[in-house]
Amino acid sequence: MSDLTLKAVERDAADPLRSARERFVLDGAVYLDGNSLGALPAAVPGRLADVVHRQWGELRIRSWSESGWWTAPERIGDRIAPLVGAAPGQIVVGDSTSVNVFKAVVAAIRMAGEERDEVLCDVTTFPTDGYIVESAARMTGRTLRALTPEQIAAEAGPRTAVALVNHVDYKSGRLNDLPGVTAALHAAGALAVWDLCHSAGALPVGLDEHGVDLAVGCTYKYLNGGPGAPAYLYIRSALQDRFDSPLPGWNSHVEPFGMRPEFTPADGAVRGRVGTPDILSMLALEAALEVWDGVSVDAVRAKSLALTDFFLQCVAAEVPAGLVSSLTPADHAERGSQVALRCADAGKVMAELISRGVIGDFREPDVLRFGFTPLYTSFQDAHTAARVLGDVLAGR
Amino acid sequence: MSDLTLKAVERDAADPLRSARERFVLDGAVYLDGNSLGALPAAVPGRLADVVHRQWGELRIRSWSESGWWTAPERIGDRIAPLVGAAPGQIVVGDSTSVNVFKAVVAAIRMAGEERDEVLCDVTTFPTDGYIVESAARMTGRTLRALTPEQIAAEAGPRTAVALVNHVDYKSGRLNDLPGVTAALHAAGALAVWDLCHSAGALPVGLDEHGVDLAVGCTYKYLNGGPGAPAYLYIRSALQDRFDSPLPGWNSHVEPFGMRPEFTPADGAVRGRVGTPDILSMLALEAALEVWDGVSVDAVRAKSLALTDFFLQCVAAEVPAGLVSSLTPADHAERGSQVALRCADAGKVMAELISRGVIGDFREPDVLRFGFTPLYTSFQDAHTAARVLGDVLAGR
Repeated sequence: MSDLTLKAVERDAADPLRSARERFVLDGAVYLDGNSLGALPAAVPGRLADVVHRQWGELRIRSWSESGWWTAPERIGDRIAPLVGAAPGQIVVGDSTSVNVFKAVVAAIRMAGEERDEVLCDVTTFPTDGYIVESAARMTGRTLRALTPEQIAAEAGPRTAVALVNHVDYKSGRLNDLPGVTAALHAAGALAVWDLCHSAGALPVGLDEHGVDLAVGCTYKYLNGGPGAPAYLYIRSALQDRFDSPLPGWNSHVEPFGMRPEFTPADGAVRGRVGTPDILSMLALEAALEVWDGVSVDAVRAKSLALTDFFLQCVAAEVPAGLVSSLTPADHAERGSQVALRCADAGKVMAELISRGVIGDFREPDVLRFGFTPLYTSFQDAHTAARVLGDVLAGR
Repeated sequence: MSDLTLKAVERDAADPLRSARERFVLDGAVYLDGNSLGALPAAVPGRLADVVHRQWGELRIRSWSESGWWTAPERIGDRIAPLVGAAPGQIVVGDSTSVNVFKAVVAAIRMAGEERDEVLCDVTTFPTDGYIVESAARMTGRTLRALTPEQIAAEAGPRTAVALVNHVDYKSGRLNDLPGVTAALHAAGALAVWDLCHSAGALPVGLDEHGVDLAVGCTYKYLNGGPGAPAYLYIRSALQDRFDSPLPGWNSHVEPFGMRPEFTPADGAVRGRVGTPDILSMLALEAALEVWDGVSVDAVRAKSLALTDFFLQCVAAEVPAGLVSSLTPADHAERGSQVALRCADAGKVMAELISRGVIGDFREPDVLRFGFTPLYTSFQDAHTAARVLGDVLAGR
């Protein structure tokens, strides 16, 4: 047994989160793509079968009240809240991340007022956020500037209405400075909208603590909600009565069953809802969130950093020198929960890794992404992945 | 056996759609609320279990390609197409009806051009459409007028960009004149957006035949897709290259995995997609649509009219005179697939009906709604519902 193999076994044995792995349906694969689609939590199939057979099939329409369907968006939002450092009553679940970016950015522009005619967007953002922010700027007559998070902090000024920033960069895995950028935006009188897709469930976010105004995130990565599971929207309590949604559907009406022709928004985060909630996907997510029972986000973060450190150490030992370079910051303060390695022929390399049971993903033009999901990724997984990568790159 | 009981039995025996009932999970209840939430199709639980266990749990990320997840919105759109009289390639599934109304109305306003500064909306619409159209008008600087469908046809003029009209009114069950109103809008140079929530799956729509520009609909009523199942958007082929979405998410990009910072829309109806599709709900819908195999919409319409006629005949016979009045047009050309009865204390009456196993719903202030879903509603159901209503209103 090599030193690293032994070390991996020891670290797994000492891992305080090791029992969380049993809450998932896993097989022999080394699954390092949980930052794209989280693994299946074991509680989901049974719950979903109950939702389908009993709640839909037997209770049918009565389930809107009797099975708690109607209030699911805010109930599940409150379940996500502690994972992102939010007190209850500030998150609703529903729609896609893209649609929630639109709601958040347009609402923020409206809160900022007419005289603030500029919108900033993280230039390294996952593209959909950029497209949607561009649409929000176009529809509200604002100018859009794409800047790095550092530039956003430096250049926000009296014309800035809002900036949309990613907490963790989807490609490099870089962790951006949420407290610092938010403070800089606030100092300029602007609002901060954070995209938490690649951070929530992997590291502490601290939305309330850092005074974030609005935030969005998906639930199918580190939150394991299932393919295309509904996204969520955080609206800070103090801003809820000024949240003027561009998508004022009947679910955000103060009296949704009053069927009033005039729109009067509900109080609270419910104002961020739009149409009828997508119940099957939403209740699968609710079951999936049970894997977080008794888990502290700080413990997740500690294991995440240990895993990515260990993986980088294994890559240095197992991969012939010069064949890969890490895009992921070495500094813990700047690292999310993935490692991105630049490598020649990355698309082909990833296909070969997958065929050997190491599942990561490829991002154009030359990036291998490996996501580390502390609830179910082991140190032995990290070592195996590095060893197989070394084999592939050495032509073994 | 009374005459009507006998007649109901005879008509069920002669019903060419009677075997379709076996495609659903039903119990002893008389379920006349399929116009709110369709019953559970028998194919759904097994399909969803496979999606969860095998596609998500085992194949995980590979399912985006190997299980056809990525292309589900347009594939399932093509499955809905024949039910609404559309050729393939014009419908995408995803998001809620409200979000699709926003996409359709904003896109139509943009197609109509700057000089058309007025938007019309069906004054009797289900409220969410009105709220969303108001937001679309506000965000594009247009004036909104709420009119009846007849007024829309009469008053559309050179300032009119688009009108949103409901094919069947959610409250009264009235069928609006889709061909006539669409033709009047076109004669004025305006576009027609139809909301098909209460018609698709219950009667012929003829989107292509009547030259409808854009249409939206939900899938959880007569299409039985499950609670909050994703909605759909129809974009007429000839307009697709001019469809400029206010929600240009990465799923509508010509090269979604290219991760380009600039938005370049895909060709075709795919342009109506936004974010990551909600796979669990979407594939449950796909299984649900199998109940339509071999079913003609004309046969559904014939049975629907026969059922609502028969129900009205039974109500006349079983309910003491003067206690209810029908809001639903007697003329077949103006009738959808529900019967709305006005009645004193309607909320309490419906609660009592439900406690006796007849499931309809109540709409403010005084309306009892009974939906007739020809694939699984029998003539005996219609008779039983009228008999029990008579009992309740007579204090029996």
